[in-house]
Amino acid sequence: MSRLDSFIRRLEAQRACLDRAAALVAGLPGPVFEFGLGNGRSYDHLRERLPGRDIYVLDRHIAAHPACIPPADRLLLGDFRDTAPAAARRFAGQAALIHADLGSGDEAASRALTVALQPAWLGLLRDGGILVCDQPAAAPGLMAPGLAAIELPTGVAPGRYFFFRRDRR
Amino acid sequence: MSRLDSFIRRLEAQRACLDRAAALVAGLPGPVFEFGLGNGRSYDHLRERLPGRDIYVLDRHIAAHPACIPPADRLLLGDFRDTAPAAARRFAGQAALIHADLGSGDEAASRALTVALQPAWLGLLRDGGILVCDQPAAAPGLMAPGLAAIELPTGVAPGRYFFFRRDRR
Repeated sequence: MSRLDSFIRRLEAQRACLDRAAALVAGLPGPVFEFGLGNGRSYDHLRERLPGRDIYVLDRHIAAHPACIPPADRLLLGDFRDTAPAAARRFAGQAALIHADLGSGDEAASRALTVALQPAWLGLLRDGGILVCDQPAAAPGLMAPGLAAIELPTGVAPGRYFFFRRDRR
Repeated sequence: MSRLDSFIRRLEAQRACLDRAAALVAGLPGPVFEFGLGNGRSYDHLRERLPGRDIYVLDRHIAAHPACIPPADRLLLGDFRDTAPAAARRFAGQAALIHADLGSGDEAASRALTVALQPAWLGLLRDGGILVCDQPAAAPGLMAPGLAAIELPTGVAPGRYFFFRRDRR
């Protein structure tokens, strides 16, 4: 499989996960949180699949296509370790969906970041809210109590993405 | 259609075009030329689809994944306007396939570059050789005599890619 093949497969998996996540929260009120804007493609996809929903985006800086930059009042810029706890205080128990696309070249750093962000994710999510994460540190068993692993969309290879639902408190 | 959708569609079209190009030149000897290495994904795909074939890559500089960098003796670094004519002199009438992925943010510049490179492409290609290009300046009618437009692969939207076969001299 060429790198072009595997890149297409990865993007198709991401789309399948975002579509599934949007379907899962269709009847669940509350804002959406996107951890990592990157080029803005997954933000644009969520925005299209969840019209009218407030989507807050956290990132260190903006490197997205101009058409994929959120309104300033929904952009939480800075280090995730600062912005995530701040968001968890401001939106405690309100989030319907969190999508965290944290992959960087540095696996150990991505893993550490995922672990560091778990308390904020738990704080943000409403009961029944959904967490979708690209990081192996979000594998079942490694995740904080309070998040129950749920099935991946058909066709998405295990280990590529991780799906959780916030337990009732 | 979200930017994620359209990005996936663009990559799938590129893969379909590379697969078709590889099939078209399967029985045609001669090196392959990749104009624009970029991240190296299409180079990796061609390398996998055409094992054992010499693939020369032209680009200004290397920004590819380390696994997708060609051997030094098949890397022609510099401005296309210098390296393409030099390659055309060195490999006159030998190339089985040219893949040119020249798209940049600047449409006018990409168009001008495509027009500037046509003489080199004509010089490089052997009779029956294939040119695949992502640029509208390669639209039928705009291309130099000597290159006959051929059909796109099924499912690739017209205008997304352009396919040509070098006429017999």
